[in-house]
This record gives sequence, structure tokens and C-alpha cells, in this order.
Amino acid sequence: MQLPDSIENLIFQFSRLPGVGKKSAMRLALHLLQAQETQAKDLSEALIRAKEQIKKCTKCYAYTEEPLCPICSSHRRNSQLVCVVEKQTDLMAFERSGDFEGLYHVLGAAISPLDGIGPSDLHIPELLGRLKQDQVTEVILATSSSAEGESTAHFIDKAIQQESIRRTRLARGIPMGTELEFLDDHTLSRALQSRIDI
Amino acid sequence: MQLPDSIENLIFQFSRLPGVGKKSAMRLALHLLQAQETQAKDLSEALIRAKEQIKKCTKCYAYTEEPLCPICSSHRRNSQLVCVVEKQTDLMAFERSGDFEGLYHVLGAAISPLDGIGPSDLHIPELLGRLKQDQVTEVILATSSSAEGESTAHFIDKAIQQESIRRTRLARGIPMGTELEFLDDHTLSRALQSRIDI
Repeated sequence: MQLPDSIENLIFQFSRLPGVGKKSAMRLALHLLQAQETQAKDLSEALIRAKEQIKKCTKCYAYTEEPLCPICSSHRRNSQLVCVVEKQTDLMAFERSGDFEGLYHVLGAAISPLDGIGPSDLHIPELLGRLKQDQVTEVILATSSSAEGESTAHFIDKAIQQESIRRTRLARGIPMGTELEFLDDHTLSRALQSRIDI
Repeated sequence: MQLPDSIENLIFQFSRLPGVGKKSAMRLALHLLQAQETQAKDLSEALIRAKEQIKKCTKCYAYTEEPLCPICSSHRRNSQLVCVVEKQTDLMAFERSGDFEGLYHVLGAAISPLDGIGPSDLHIPELLGRLKQDQVTEVILATSSSAEGESTAHFIDKAIQQESIRRTRLARGIPMGTELEFLDDHTLSRALQSRIDI
């Protein structure tokens, strides 16, 4: 049986979302048709409102509803320390840990020639401008440990080599609570190379 | 870091959907903020349009955009044979199999006292009215094999006992392509009891 067009269209729109297959999309669509009158409307309005109101911070490119995000506009953060991340979710992971008192710079992605993403597609020029303007003393290159993340860090590292700015990467090693026998070889050998005195 | 309100609200709306946890909801919301301008709008409009245009068939209570669904309004279907199902998706499963030439009746759910769903909350009165009006000769009680489904079938069976209508249930047995050793005991003993001559 062909479902009515408006349901088929709703299923199609759901199935475009990441991790939502044809079957889940159908389940979501049929659920919303049966659910309370307001639920579909609430979701619909939330989509429009988020898309309209969310901008990127003019300084660090995190999502915000104001010109400057709460972190960049806070006086309690150290503006001379900048942590460069690929995505908003990476920034949020640092904030959850609660240990970082500097500012961020969200690149938007990593350099990935295969996906057609070059340095100019990321917020790298803005980062370089910002480093000078804000007299930044340390840049933490917290891109991911994928090939793309590593080459992005390498690119930025090269670009700011001449400045007298400290450049750091996150430490590599054994995650907390991990059994050695289940650890991948690469992580274990990195942890061994970078071993520290007790 | 507290995300902007409009993102938090979008995440909350996504997390109300079945099978979508807090983390997936966040992934969906952040994906839509990054995605092409139109994608969030398309989903938003699809939600509103489906909710506005989809009604239930006045005869069988399947979803439709017309007063009568395509199945009920088809002249090629046998209107004296009615298959009673709990949900729209059950109806669709029958249609996919392509073997059923009768009409359907979608109850909306199964009787479930624990969830506060009694016979009057389902489309059972409408079914009884329809059976007389359309001179139905057979009712297939294709509710699910859960306790709720069984008791729903039992309730309808009782309600139409006096009429001279054939009442049937789907055959129970071994699904196609199943290894006996992995089959649950209940299904196997039902299949043994209902064994048929070769």
C-alpha cells in the first residue's frame, strides 16, 4: 500500500537525518501522527526557531543566539589561551570536563581533500587574525586524532610557527579505566613512548 | 556549556520521539543546524503538512488524505472480508505481502487496562456497525499475539458471536526459514499442536 503523499514526504524528510533509516523514519512519522496534537507542531516550530535564531559567534564560531557566545563574552575566561576544535560537540566535551578556562575556536570541520574541504573552507584565516589581535600566548590544537584531524593540526601549526605562540596538542595515552589487554596497539605504543617519570 | 535555548529546545523536541535518546537528539539537532539551509525548513513543513492533511479513513480508520482510503474506495477489493488490525503498520505488512484482497479495520491499539485503553477507546463500535452495514461474511482477527492482542481478539470474537459471520485468526506456526533449534518453545508447541496432514 502506498501511504498518502504527505506521510511519504514526512518519512523521506526524517530518513535524510543521520542514523535514521527508512524503517525508523516511518516509525517516527507514524508516531507523530498518533501523538498529541501539539507534538508535531512543537517540533516543527523548534526547527524553524533554531534555524532562525542560531548564529555563529563572531569570535570563536560556536553556536550562539548573541553576536558573541557566552564563553567569549565572559570576563572569567583567559582570552590568551585558545583551544582549537573541529566541532561544536568537541567544545561541549571540554566544557563538560570543566577544566578549561581559556576560549575556543571552532573550525567547523577538519581539512579533508577527499571531501573537498580545504583550509579556506574552515575558520583558519579567522583564527590567525584572532591570534594576533588578542595577543594569544598558547594555542591548543585539539583536533581529532584521525588523519584529517592530524593534518589540520599540522597545517595550523605550520601557519603560526613564526609567531611566538606556544603550540600544544592533547596528551596521548591510556584512557582512564581501560584494561591494557583491550587497548589498540597504536595507543599502547604511543603511551609507552610518552611514558612519564613517577 | 549550556547550549543556546533554541538548540536545547530542538534537542528536547527530538528526544521526545520514540527511540531517540538525548545523545541522538543532540546529533540530529546539530546536524540540521549545519545542513543545507532548506533541510530543517523542509522537515518542519513536512510535519505541519502531514498533521494537517492526514485524516483517518471514515470506514477503516487507516491514514488517508481523502474521506475514504484507496483500499476502501477500490472496486477490486472484497468488501465482505474484513481484516482487523491494531495499527497502520500491520495493515501495511499485509499489503506488502500482496495476498489479501479484502478490506481492513484499524483499531488504533489493543485493549490494555494497564494503559487505560478499554474497548471504547478503540474503533470497535465502528467495526460492529460496519459488519452489519456491509454484510461482511468473514472477519480475520489479526491482532498481535501479545496478551493485549489476544484479549482484544477475544473481546471482538465475543461481541460478534451471535452474528452469522465467520471469525478467523491467523495461523500460528514456524516462520519461513527458521532453524527449529532457535525457535521459542511456545511457538514450537503451538506448531506441533496445529500440525497438518501432508
